[in-house]
Amino acid sequence: MRMDPISLYDYEARAREVLPHNYWEFIEAGAMDEIATARNRAAFEALTMRPRFMRDTAERKIATTVLGTDISFPVMISPTDAHSNAHPDAECATARGAGMSNTLMMCSTNSNCSMEEVAHAATGPLWFQLSHRSYDLTENLVKRAEAAGYRAIVLTIDAPFPSPKERDIRNRYERPGEYGNFREQLKLASESGEPPPWEAQECPPITWRELEWLRSLTGLPLVLKGLRVAEDARKAVEHGVNGILVSTHGGRRFDSTMSSIEMVPGIVAATGGKAEVYVDSGVRRGSDVLKALALGATAVAVGRPLYWGLAVNGAEGVHHMLEILREEFDRAMAYCGQNSVDNLEERLLNIPREWGPFRTENDI
Amino acid sequence: MRMDPISLYDYEARAREVLPHNYWEFIEAGAMDEIATARNRAAFEALTMRPRFMRDTAERKIATTVLGTDISFPVMISPTDAHSNAHPDAECATARGAGMSNTLMMCSTNSNCSMEEVAHAATGPLWFQLSHRSYDLTENLVKRAEAAGYRAIVLTIDAPFPSPKERDIRNRYERPGEYGNFREQLKLASESGEPPPWEAQECPPITWRELEWLRSLTGLPLVLKGLRVAEDARKAVEHGVNGILVSTHGGRRFDSTMSSIEMVPGIVAATGGKAEVYVDSGVRRGSDVLKALALGATAVAVGRPLYWGLAVNGAEGVHHMLEILREEFDRAMAYCGQNSVDNLEERLLNIPREWGPFRTENDI
Amino acid sequence: MRMDPISLYDYEARAREVLPHNYWEFIEAGAMDEIATARNRAAFEALTMRPRFMRDTAERKIATTVLGTDISFPVMISPTDAHSNAHPDAECATARGAGMSNTLMMCSTNSNCSMEEVAHAATGPLWFQLSHRSYDLTENLVKRAEAAGYRAIVLTIDAPFPSPKERDIRNRYERPGEYGNFREQLKLASESGEPPPWEAQECPPITWRELEWLRSLTGLPLVLKGLRVAEDARKAVEHGVNGILVSTHGGRRFDSTMSSIEMVPGIVAATGGKAEVYVDSGVRRGSDVLKALALGATAVAVGRPLYWGLAVNGAEGVHHMLEILREEFDRAMAYCGQNSVDNLEERLLNIPREWGPFRTENDI
Amino acid sequence: MRMDPISLYDYEARAREVLPHNYWEFIEAGAMDEIATARNRAAFEALTMRPRFMRDTAERKIATTVLGTDISFPVMISPTDAHSNAHPDAECATARGAGMSNTLMMCSTNSNCSMEEVAHAATGPLWFQLSHRSYDLTENLVKRAEAAGYRAIVLTIDAPFPSPKERDIRNRYERPGEYGNFREQLKLASESGEPPPWEAQECPPITWRELEWLRSLTGLPLVLKGLRVAEDARKAVEHGVNGILVSTHGGRRFDSTMSSIEMVPGIVAATGGKAEVYVDSGVRRGSDVLKALALGATAVAVGRPLYWGLAVNGAEGVHHMLEILREEFDRAMAYCGQNSVDNLEERLLNIPREWGPFRTENDI
Repeated sequence: MRMDPISLYDYEARAREVLPHNYWEFIEAGAMDEIATARNRAAFEALTMRPRFMRDTAERKIATTVLGTDISFPVMISPTDAHSNAHPDAECATARGAGMSNTLMMCSTNSNCSMEEVAHAATGPLWFQLSHRSYDLTENLVKRAEAAGYRAIVLTIDAPFPSPKERDIRNRYERPGEYGNFREQLKLASESGEPPPWEAQECPPITWRELEWLRSLTGLPLVLKGLRVAEDARKAVEHGVNGILVSTHGGRRFDSTMSSIEMVPGIVAATGGKAEVYVDSGVRRGSDVLKALALGATAVAVGRPLYWGLAVNGAEGVHHMLEILREEFDRAMAYCGQNSVDNLEERLLNIPREWGPFRTENDI
Repeated sequence: MRMDPISLYDYEARAREVLPHNYWEFIEAGAMDEIATARNRAAFEALTMRPRFMRDTAERKIATTVLGTDISFPVMISPTDAHSNAHPDAECATARGAGMSNTLMMCSTNSNCSMEEVAHAATGPLWFQLSHRSYDLTENLVKRAEAAGYRAIVLTIDAPFPSPKERDIRNRYERPGEYGNFREQLKLASESGEPPPWEAQECPPITWRELEWLRSLTGLPLVLKGLRVAEDARKAVEHGVNGILVSTHGGRRFDSTMSSIEMVPGIVAATGGKAEVYVDSGVRRGSDVLKALALGATAVAVGRPLYWGLAVNGAEGVHHMLEILREEFDRAMAYCGQNSVDNLEERLLNIPREWGPFRTENDI
Repeated sequence: MRMDPISLYDYEARAREVLPHNYWEFIEAGAMDEIATARNRAAFEALTMRPRFMRDTAERKIATTVLGTDISFPVMISPTDAHSNAHPDAECATARGAGMSNTLMMCSTNSNCSMEEVAHAATGPLWFQLSHRSYDLTENLVKRAEAAGYRAIVLTIDAPFPSPKERDIRNRYERPGEYGNFREQLKLASESGEPPPWEAQECPPITWRELEWLRSLTGLPLVLKGLRVAEDARKAVEHGVNGILVSTHGGRRFDSTMSSIEMVPGIVAATGGKAEVYVDSGVRRGSDVLKALALGATAVAVGRPLYWGLAVNGAEGVHHMLEILREEFDRAMAYCGQNSVDNLEERLLNIPREWGPFRTENDI
Repeated sequence: MRMDPISLYDYEARAREVLPHNYWEFIEAGAMDEIATARNRAAFEALTMRPRFMRDTAERKIATTVLGTDISFPVMISPTDAHSNAHPDAECATARGAGMSNTLMMCSTNSNCSMEEVAHAATGPLWFQLSHRSYDLTENLVKRAEAAGYRAIVLTIDAPFPSPKERDIRNRYERPGEYGNFREQLKLASESGEPPPWEAQECPPITWRELEWLRSLTGLPLVLKGLRVAEDARKAVEHGVNGILVSTHGGRRFDSTMSSIEMVPGIVAATGGKAEVYVDSGVRRGSDVLKALALGATAVAVGRPLYWGLAVNGAEGVHHMLEILREEFDRAMAYCGQNSVDNLEERLLNIPREWGPFRTENDI
């Protein structure tokens, strides 16, 4: 009998075996030359740990809290598009997998299942990822998210402009499944003959003004996803943002940027403790979680790996993928002599000398 | 039906399919071990961007002005030898392609078409690239360029000595097509039995003295192409030069130098704002344009890619190649939160720490 | 006739030929992505030597003393698990090989032969590597080691938690041979039906408190194996530790750490001369020995290479493998103009600029 | 017809075609893992030039003088063992080739031809490379060198100990040809039944004392070959040495050292202008010559390339190989805007930031 996958890379390899080529490539690809995608991983690997032994780590607290919500370990599910790329049960399966691992899933505006269906299927906490398309639509989505029990709004800010991946263009990739959150709008659009709102070219941009409006619209905590520089992090805090998900969008929208993990120290410093910081893009090993937390992040999130888990074994695959990370992270805690995720220090790491302070940040 | 190329690398790959091997290699090769050619690209890739989101970038001004001439975006066509390497219509086709994209072409002294033919074919602005061979010939070329409506003289200074590429020697490469600018001289030479002037070994060198003479010869703006160090940039400005095209000649003439883009910051600083700075050698992505401008360049230029566009689809290919760069650059502007090419700042970049200030420039 | 191996890499290649795949991989593999294993070697290779010629090096003293025990050259045998992975005579053969080279072997708690059998077979000095499982068991092991003539206790501290290598999991690797040191305990466990103590999950952790207890338990010198950071080295000295074996466990237990040799300078400085420092993980050439000593180590140890020697030719193979290192080291001494291992200086090396002082150690 | 080689790499490739495998490998191999050999080349490639255009370089003086002897360009032939590895005419052919290029050959103690035969064949200047074996033998060799018209003694100091290359051991390489300089000694040894002096294990070491003795023995200029560190260079000058040939012995004797070219700046500084500095190991391009001179060397020398030239075409091959370097160097001078080898400055280079000052040289 074939052995269960024992690492996220196993899930990746097996997902490739079972997925149609176009879906596999949709999941795997990065923008343009995929330099940012590669850098995300390389940066995690360039960071090394400085293990402390001779400490009693028999008891290790790896559970944590993100914006007041308890999760069993500091790994969350990043919001990603159309999970039916990987499994017919789509986001509902992902939510069940995350729930089995007692962690949080961020559900995407562009899910195949509706947010209400996901909320119904979920056994763990949910945040709603918001892609702003129009004021009306955003208000509709936010109010529904509140009603459905989502505990925070994660506003994606790093996709201001369409940016199809070249592998998807070459594959003539077509997104599978429906837009679960927009069934009503689609029906209206179909009746009126107008394009659905999210296809309109006249989408208002997302600026600090939209953020203020959104801040006033809902009492839910707000997370900004995709913010990349310390300057903006300071501004975000001033605008009442509660969390920042440092992300390169997996390198999927814009190439030739720094890696996520490289940006964390500057952004953490800029928040002055007034917002939580999370990071995704490139997390593949439990040690990456420890590294992110030692740099000041509260938790990490995974994107591509959730598709891999889903593709290989549905909700169980997502759950098992998360459990691999949990075990690896827990082991990294033990090896680093740490008893609690609450006080991991930068001293646990050896930071490459070529990492910051970046010249251009001297004058912040 | 085969898909249109979606990146400059697609054009490169398809050009290889359609070109005779010797012409393909002529275009692709660099000098000697091709280290400089590789470094040109590597340096662009090592520079990363620091995107700013949350800004309204719905309106983006990417048109700019080079020495008073409007171009629709800051990408120009570098002067390169003998476009009939790639297409029978040679420089006339290139000029039409550049014009379709409303940008500027620099036409080479060693074009197959004459500068007058190119001027006739062109719908966009032209600069004339000058290879100094003799005072008489240079005066003849400059006066004709003025008469034909060329708007600036681009004096190439980085080819003081013959330096055939080794791939060309191995291929026994023979330059195709005629010397369109020298038909009269060729006829005279043929009648007199003497070699044409550009083959003479006694060419006067190009020095600051020749530059003074040239400066006095014409009222057209002067651009120096190939200048590599800050010291010389300061001197150029003192000699009344209006623009500097930072270039390694695509790594085609002299190997083992720095990359073009690495040299830009020092040269921009040295000009003190008294000359415009452009850069070619290694530009393959719209993000490269943004990077160059953020370092202080006014525009970039492309060399090899114009051959690729020409080879694949003539004027249309050149045009489409430029439009790909335009779309990529425009998207990079949006992702970096920028509304205008006029105020891109170095802060948009994360400059590798191993880049300057170079030890040897401490004492400039 | 086939030539004798002439380098440790030859032994590696030949071991691969003769070993069953699973045993070969057990020996070769590192933890997870094997980044630490690779870094161990890369770091040695990045260090370069600054040879001094013009000195009379006809007489070279390479014999040294570790914790009062003479060895014929500063290379020891690291303690490693189950030598019957490589040879049926297991640790007894290794001990004979080390003795033929007049150097020291550290014998593992998890040996196949019992420590008494190894002591009987050995002709050279022995240290006993201790894996703490329970107070009773440790006391039993230490007392037996004293009785059997072991000259120091090497406490392994860098395996606080099970961490099977992924290659071993994939191979469904099963450890060969018996637990020679636990025959009595196994018999008791078998009779009582309880698991043997080293399989218990309730093993007490190894902390500074256990170290104090162990320090009071025996008059033998104590060595800590696996300590990684300067902070802990200072603490170890305060706790009466006599030696520190800087080790990454060959990268076999925990990935993504610094290399052993990179950690040596900081640890040597932290001991203030109050403990000897040794290093293993990545030693493959005699020049590595010189490098380690020039950074302040007293001796090095080899792990994987002992298996290779054993696999190829039993005790003779271990001996010959050591003799290759001796000859290479001796030659490195001559080339570096050194007459004695007692006064090798850091000035003999060119240390990569990207090596420390590490940012996180500034405040030690 | 096959094209003539156009670079030293062509000579290398063709030499491989024509040489017996064992001789090819003897020439190509470096010591142990060949890291030093690779680093020699990589360091030259990491150095980049900062070309200066706009200067009149029509007249370029590339002839120079080494210890008072004129050579037509600053490239010499390094002393290497047994040229009959490459050609039956051995060193006599090499000397003819060097003479055709009007440059200097250093003839090895271990030549196949005798130094007198080489002197007879040579049309250019010669230096005699001395391997010290015994006082008698050295005196014999030096006196013969004086008598035969050699103009300097090049004492090799970086081979204090036998160090066969691993490729040669694997190949059971046997040195071809005779020891041309020791025919008389061989005859005597043969008659007496004793081993020839250079095979004696009791060779006296070469130390500063032997240097003093040698200095008093001859009025010829003295060059030290293989000195690697600034400290020793200062000492050499104090001992009346006239030249230093910075060399890693092509990485053939001792691995894991710095590259030759990296060592040049420190050694040049240490000589304080009181000795000339040359460099070999890794020179393959004319630009390498310019780089070495810009760092303060007076000339370079080539080792492996002379074998390649010899193997491909005897004396003509050596000559042509040198002419390729001459043309490349001359072109590099023109591109760098230089008129004379006498005043090349470090400012012509961009020195990698990771090069010195080395930490360990701070306290020199």
